[in-house]
Amino acid sequence: MLVVMRHGATADQVQRVVAIIEEMGYEARPMPGKQRTSVGLVGNDGRVDGSRIASLPGVQEILHVTKPYKQVSREWKGEATVVPFGDGLRLGAQEVVVMAGPCSVENEHQILAAARAVHEAGATVLRAGAYKPRTSPYSFQGLGEPGLRLLDRARRETGLAIVTEAIDAESLDAVAEVADIVQIGARNMQNFSLLRKAGRLGKPVLLKRGLSATIQELLLSAEYILAEGNPHVILCERGVRSYDSATRNMFDLSAIPLVHQLSHLPIIADPSHATGQRDMVIPMARAAVAAGADGLLVEVHANPDHALSDGAQSLFPRQFATLMEETRSIARAIGREIAEPAVARR
Amino acid sequence: MLVVMRHGATADQVQRVVAIIEEMGYEARPMPGKQRTSVGLVGNDGRVDGSRIASLPGVQEILHVTKPYKQVSREWKGEATVVPFGDGLRLGAQEVVVMAGPCSVENEHQILAAARAVHEAGATVLRAGAYKPRTSPYSFQGLGEPGLRLLDRARRETGLAIVTEAIDAESLDAVAEVADIVQIGARNMQNFSLLRKAGRLGKPVLLKRGLSATIQELLLSAEYILAEGNPHVILCERGVRSYDSATRNMFDLSAIPLVHQLSHLPIIADPSHATGQRDMVIPMARAAVAAGADGLLVEVHANPDHALSDGAQSLFPRQFATLMEETRSIARAIGREIAEPAVARR
Amino acid sequence: MLVVMRHGATADQVQRVVAIIEEMGYEARPMPGKQRTSVGLVGNDGRVDGSRIASLPGVQEILHVTKPYKQVSREWKGEATVVPFGDGLRLGAQEVVVMAGPCSVENEHQILAAARAVHEAGATVLRAGAYKPRTSPYSFQGLGEPGLRLLDRARRETGLAIVTEAIDAESLDAVAEVADIVQIGARNMQNFSLLRKAGRLGKPVLLKRGLSATIQELLLSAEYILAEGNPHVILCERGVRSYDSATRNMFDLSAIPLVHQLSHLPIIADPSHATGQRDMVIPMARAAVAAGADGLLVEVHANPDHALSDGAQSLFPRQFATLMEETRSIARAIGREIAEPAVARR
Amino acid sequence: MLVVMRHGATADQVQRVVAIIEEMGYEARPMPGKQRTSVGLVGNDGRVDGSRIASLPGVQEILHVTKPYKQVSREWKGEATVVPFGDGLRLGAQEVVVMAGPCSVENEHQILAAARAVHEAGATVLRAGAYKPRTSPYSFQGLGEPGLRLLDRARRETGLAIVTEAIDAESLDAVAEVADIVQIGARNMQNFSLLRKAGRLGKPVLLKRGLSATIQELLLSAEYILAEGNPHVILCERGVRSYDSATRNMFDLSAIPLVHQLSHLPIIADPSHATGQRDMVIPMARAAVAAGADGLLVEVHANPDHALSDGAQSLFPRQFATLMEETRSIARAIGREIAEPAVARR
Repeated sequence: MLVVMRHGATADQVQRVVAIIEEMGYEARPMPGKQRTSVGLVGNDGRVDGSRIASLPGVQEILHVTKPYKQVSREWKGEATVVPFGDGLRLGAQEVVVMAGPCSVENEHQILAAARAVHEAGATVLRAGAYKPRTSPYSFQGLGEPGLRLLDRARRETGLAIVTEAIDAESLDAVAEVADIVQIGARNMQNFSLLRKAGRLGKPVLLKRGLSATIQELLLSAEYILAEGNPHVILCERGVRSYDSATRNMFDLSAIPLVHQLSHLPIIADPSHATGQRDMVIPMARAAVAAGADGLLVEVHANPDHALSDGAQSLFPRQFATLMEETRSIARAIGREIAEPAVARR
Repeated sequence: MLVVMRHGATADQVQRVVAIIEEMGYEARPMPGKQRTSVGLVGNDGRVDGSRIASLPGVQEILHVTKPYKQVSREWKGEATVVPFGDGLRLGAQEVVVMAGPCSVENEHQILAAARAVHEAGATVLRAGAYKPRTSPYSFQGLGEPGLRLLDRARRETGLAIVTEAIDAESLDAVAEVADIVQIGARNMQNFSLLRKAGRLGKPVLLKRGLSATIQELLLSAEYILAEGNPHVILCERGVRSYDSATRNMFDLSAIPLVHQLSHLPIIADPSHATGQRDMVIPMARAAVAAGADGLLVEVHANPDHALSDGAQSLFPRQFATLMEETRSIARAIGREIAEPAVARR
Repeated sequence: MLVVMRHGATADQVQRVVAIIEEMGYEARPMPGKQRTSVGLVGNDGRVDGSRIASLPGVQEILHVTKPYKQVSREWKGEATVVPFGDGLRLGAQEVVVMAGPCSVENEHQILAAARAVHEAGATVLRAGAYKPRTSPYSFQGLGEPGLRLLDRARRETGLAIVTEAIDAESLDAVAEVADIVQIGARNMQNFSLLRKAGRLGKPVLLKRGLSATIQELLLSAEYILAEGNPHVILCERGVRSYDSATRNMFDLSAIPLVHQLSHLPIIADPSHATGQRDMVIPMARAAVAAGADGLLVEVHANPDHALSDGAQSLFPRQFATLMEETRSIARAIGREIAEPAVARR
Repeated sequence: MLVVMRHGATADQVQRVVAIIEEMGYEARPMPGKQRTSVGLVGNDGRVDGSRIASLPGVQEILHVTKPYKQVSREWKGEATVVPFGDGLRLGAQEVVVMAGPCSVENEHQILAAARAVHEAGATVLRAGAYKPRTSPYSFQGLGEPGLRLLDRARRETGLAIVTEAIDAESLDAVAEVADIVQIGARNMQNFSLLRKAGRLGKPVLLKRGLSATIQELLLSAEYILAEGNPHVILCERGVRSYDSATRNMFDLSAIPLVHQLSHLPIIADPSHATGQRDMVIPMARAAVAAGADGLLVEVHANPDHALSDGAQSLFPRQFATLMEETRSIARAIGREIAEPAVARR
């Protein structure tokens, strides 16, 4: 439920609405806007009688949010959320942000080579996992904290912002210290304890869609993060499970216009995990941008044939440069542009 | 199995290869090329001993086609197939062909209004069903032959080529007399008798992917048509069944680069059936063209709110004009263009 | 819409209801019952004003059928349909009918060996395909009419009833001459022309669920057959497509109680196609009977390792004998029994 | 890799094999058996050269485990694992264990009423959630620790063993203090940190299949628990996501014989979550037992219409009594029986 105040409502009037909502046993969230202030009633509002609030001084109207998710919905907040991160970067605005790098941090040489390559081609964010959630206990599980230090080193050298995954409560703290954007992976999309903890971070969160999550479930998981007070959530379509083994997953690009319709949160796309095949990454990156994606997450490895994980879907640096060129053309065709690295912006 | 003849092999040498293949109990298909002639051995060639053929005069090499489909594969034919249709039009070449119109032919006024609207916006092909395969026996099943006559009339008036669906052996003959391209719908993708009959038509066939068909199954169904001697098949991605009811189907755009990799046949995309929602058709049409689609199939109705079927996913004429403009920009961004109507070409 | 007549309503009163329905442009279907007669209004009844009928003499009440399918629904007909077939057999009653045999008729020796084996173990129906719908045009497509003659011969020798598949309009006529039950396969579940033609046969129809059909779609396809006047439809759950390749299909046994809840039609289960693995057929056959299946369709081959199709999922005769024993125990545990061959019944 | 020692191999010989494996950088796991001892080499053994070990004294043969999972496979351990729990109970042996109770612990009256009802009908384990993972942050999230204390109270009163879910690292410790079996829910099946921690508990773990997990992924998740030293894992089929919304999930009963084929771990089935409909729970419980399930997990509520969660799928106590009777008949039909409560056993 959203209480919209009149233009010119006083701080006292807003405060009184907050007090009444709290008295009724709910949490109130005042949201000052350019034209007027709204007060959101957080929680399952199915049985709230709004008439008591509607008659308070300064209240213009009561909006019922019809979706099971509240704060992430377009009904709750009409304008698109722009997520600020790193050194003056932002996601969700006119420019499309490209995040690229290897699946995992393997060693200093590898991550620095990858960072330089993606920076040179024009990416603004470096992606690479220090903690890897792996289906088998016997697969490479990531370098852990030493991997985070190598990411930090790559940032200092190239100026790239860092996005990397946290896989549990412990790694979340470590990751949040280093990363500019904290990633919650597909397998943890409904790890509600982790989502709640991510909602108490001061860092933006990149939330990947679960292996066979509906869009409604994705938005409800984002709601867990917003409900704890962190408004900076970036959603990510990375393909879902299907019956056809021809590609690793089925890339559900319709999720992009659908999320933009239902929510104010930005959404990016990961063509590497979605297709699992190097040769399909470029056309599907173009398609994602054409569909309206606010960013891309792409696997690039300086030497894919020797990657410890996901080699077959990693681009060679030269292919990534082609991807950047082609997506720049597509972005321009729809009136957007690809975000440029800090150096170029000066 | 493909027998590649030497450059300069004589017609007699080719004929001898054909004779030996037929003697072995298989069908032979000679394919003259610019540089050299190949002879395809059609059928399940798992147990054919190629050595007898390899030693014939004029034979350069024997290629084993590793896929279960043969004649539709890139291994069999390297260059993209360009399908000629209508009055000097073609599909599978540099230009992207837009086919648009209402779900069903309802009456003369409706189909002519739609035809004029899509022609004016720049489409080159009119789509509309005279025969409708419906899940319920009590739903509107199409006008049948009178509908075909109305389509013919719309063609004479606007110059648009016609694509319309055949649903069984009877309607196939009637449709083939009127249509420039005969459509086989998703529910009939594995109606093998109908595919065989479509393979004996002299008209191009638009084959839609089944509701949960794999890409391999789609290609094998196309193989049924080619195996009967009709090389002019256009594939169509129209979304597949998924667990998420947020969209009507899941639009599997990865099918486009995948089909281009595995096959020489052209593939188009149908964002209307895929999404089922008018508001998502334009972004997904852009995405399809960016992914490399050779054409689009779009539902447009002059008055969607009164459509007898699929109204919710049909564009208003004004929205279709926007779709044409935006996909033109995308096509140019990847070095293609949208095919223009005959009138404009003069 | 169902018009329930009063107990003791006269034939004239019933006739008047029929006349009014037809005057309104719909088809009327009188259904005499033990207690009273009902008259069904066939077709999309969304806009029918029932008040005119409700006030006719002899009419007790008007029932609106809330499902999109009408005549197949439990609302339309409360008692389970029992399908009579062959020489005094029936399906849908207390006894569970086992249909068994090879995937395809291959030759006289093979089909007679299989027929004797399944008859000896206690099956009452022989299954085997003379016409095979195959994904690839190069796979064995069945013997056709000579296969039907071999089935006829097997029936005369063993007394088994015959169920075999029709794949198109042509084969339907040929099959209906020989078969006791005509099978419509999964790939043809939405071949509506074929369904209509099957609705005009005087033979029971076994309708298999499509590869990823919903239960509602299965029931609507059955409705096509009933709407043409053939009330003897047997549904069949044979597994649906899923993301897990560990089994050939996903066996959706919940379909059995669900169909019994929604419809009066009987439903059988095919554990062979569902699992694709010989070792899983017996436990899943037990499970199907425990869930309430009215019959089983099982692949048995006298020599599975040399079968031309589906060898890996065919039981050896000895395994089939075990299946019969174990399903007899399960049937007894729920108060049913396995139907016995005619010979045994004498 | 599994090193099988000769019958009569000495402890020294076994120790030497262990030492060599550890020298090679792997973990060794000696497993004394009735006839002979085996030593498992734990980890990704793709590149291990077995010849060095094969030539050691006392070694009979080297078995390569061909599956990605090792310790959970039938190749690793041939006999079925029997999990001891509670006061002399066991799961995985001849008797089928029924676990029943409400979705959540709501209050003292509710949980005691449910416990008495299921005990009376013959269940041996009480199920109920104190911690509930919920898709929406605004749904009832469980009573937490007070709920655990109520479960403890219900156990003391009825003698039922307790199975209840842990949702994160914190709740795992609390749950393990009270529960006889610790449940890891479907949404946490790939929460690898939680699985590892569960592998270091001294309590049996009930691991539910993820919403769209493959059987291989389920087994790999169990491998995480065994790899930490906890051999007592019970798997649970609870339905997977499908395209048909007619039931809540698709109940994949083929998982039962498949798991028994691939693994030595026991597997139970949850017909309540699988179907989501009260009326389908009994037939599907029968089917699960017929398919070979080692146990059942069933939702029962003394007053389903007032349940705080999952009311529509909870049985009334009277229905549960019917379920017990009918599954007893099925169990007997396949030579098993339903485990009886401690009281009855005395």
